[in-house]
Amino acid sequence: MDRRPIGVFDSGLGGLTAVRSLRSILPGENLVYFGDTARVPYGGRSPETILKYARQDVRFLRTFDLKAILIACGTVTSTSLEQLRRENDLPMLGVVEPSCRAALAATRNRRVGIIATQASVRSGAYERTLRALAPEVTVLQQACPLFVPLAEEGRTRPGDIVIETVAREYLAPLRGQGIDTLILGCTHYPLLKEVIAGVMGPEVALIDSGEESARELQRLLSASGGLGEPRGGGAIFCVSDRVEDFRHLASRFLGEDVGDSVRRVSVEDA
Amino acid sequence: MDRRPIGVFDSGLGGLTAVRSLRSILPGENLVYFGDTARVPYGGRSPETILKYARQDVRFLRTFDLKAILIACGTVTSTSLEQLRRENDLPMLGVVEPSCRAALAATRNRRVGIIATQASVRSGAYERTLRALAPEVTVLQQACPLFVPLAEEGRTRPGDIVIETVAREYLAPLRGQGIDTLILGCTHYPLLKEVIAGVMGPEVALIDSGEESARELQRLLSASGGLGEPRGGGAIFCVSDRVEDFRHLASRFLGEDVGDSVRRVSVEDA
Repeated sequence: MDRRPIGVFDSGLGGLTAVRSLRSILPGENLVYFGDTARVPYGGRSPETILKYARQDVRFLRTFDLKAILIACGTVTSTSLEQLRRENDLPMLGVVEPSCRAALAATRNRRVGIIATQASVRSGAYERTLRALAPEVTVLQQACPLFVPLAEEGRTRPGDIVIETVAREYLAPLRGQGIDTLILGCTHYPLLKEVIAGVMGPEVALIDSGEESARELQRLLSASGGLGEPRGGGAIFCVSDRVEDFRHLASRFLGEDVGDSVRRVSVEDA
Repeated sequence: MDRRPIGVFDSGLGGLTAVRSLRSILPGENLVYFGDTARVPYGGRSPETILKYARQDVRFLRTFDLKAILIACGTVTSTSLEQLRRENDLPMLGVVEPSCRAALAATRNRRVGIIATQASVRSGAYERTLRALAPEVTVLQQACPLFVPLAEEGRTRPGDIVIETVAREYLAPLRGQGIDTLILGCTHYPLLKEVIAGVMGPEVALIDSGEESARELQRLLSASGGLGEPRGGGAIFCVSDRVEDFRHLASRFLGEDVGDSVRRVSVEDA
């Protein structure tokens, strides 16, 4: 048994969708979450900028004695996972491979769509991973740059004409292409699941990348004997900007009150 | 005559609306523009984070030998102008006071509205400045957090249902309150001028904070004998992230091709 905490990070609130899954699948694990709210969003930035920010995020998380890190961010995983793995001597999991495996298990017609940030789409990481696992699969990608700001502003409700219009626009090229599976390749997107499902229709399976990576982490810890207690785990939330703003939305996204467990930290000098 | 360049900065593209005005009012001045595109947007961040970023922006600009700095950003002006002035021994101009003066010159019924970022509204800087200049004026404020991401994504056209809906929502509390003057308290907002004018109607005067601060700078340089050549000024554009993304949108916003005059720089270590 390994009682050390698991580190989880994202550019902002999105990674909380992975935390929610982790809390439900592994309720005994202790978690340290970092959301880089002073520099959110990452998805429109260059690979070099994202790697720089991600290195600082990891360096901060490693001030805790962690047993693993979950990169709960599609943008960081797509652009920086390999480099971060080379630089760190602890298990590090991203969201790309678990969701690609889940998509291939779900698709029947071998036509898979991916929606993600601009940086993730440009990196080609999802497409490369899918093709490496199943060369015959047809892959369609679409960047959705406004999804993160809209989700961070809480515009996630079906019927909201703003998010509905933006979603219909972004998803139009994927509809009619006959995909039966769609990877939500950014951990913010599960917040928009209902809206996206409404546009894509019930015949398209949606793959939640945060949830799939939480399951993968469970398998990994289980296989290596690294699981913690079966229940009673705690969580610390750290952010790089206003605690109040995070607390308000986080409780909504997490489905539990984060209360006094939120701290503000500086990671730029880390 | 003073041929040294004027420094101008903003979190991203918004300050280009002030640059556009400067190029038209003072076509002979040399300009150095910095847009902090690696950390845009500033408007939802805390005062401490904004001050930290602004100090780095100023430190970078001052690697040039400047005669003045125009803070072409409502958020930085609202939260950090006084502190930056104390720390720097060159004329430093913001966008708040010039636009408040212009609004007071324009209003007939003494009811003035302000739209700005969350951070600017929280700071109360516009309201304080208006009241100091004209205590009898009624001031109404409204934060518009999605305007910057939407403008940076180029969603500025009248008829676009997304920007139209968001604008109508944000502006609803100001309509019907009988204001006859509205300060666009963020330099991104002039990009949305047509949309905002369409919602507010022709009887409401819109004050462009970038334009007003460009005029104020002209007066200041003129009064101190600090004007440059009457024509033929050049401009250098510096950004903290991808040059390509900036070049594309900047040319549209500026109304002139920025071509090869864009450089990528790092300011975090400045």
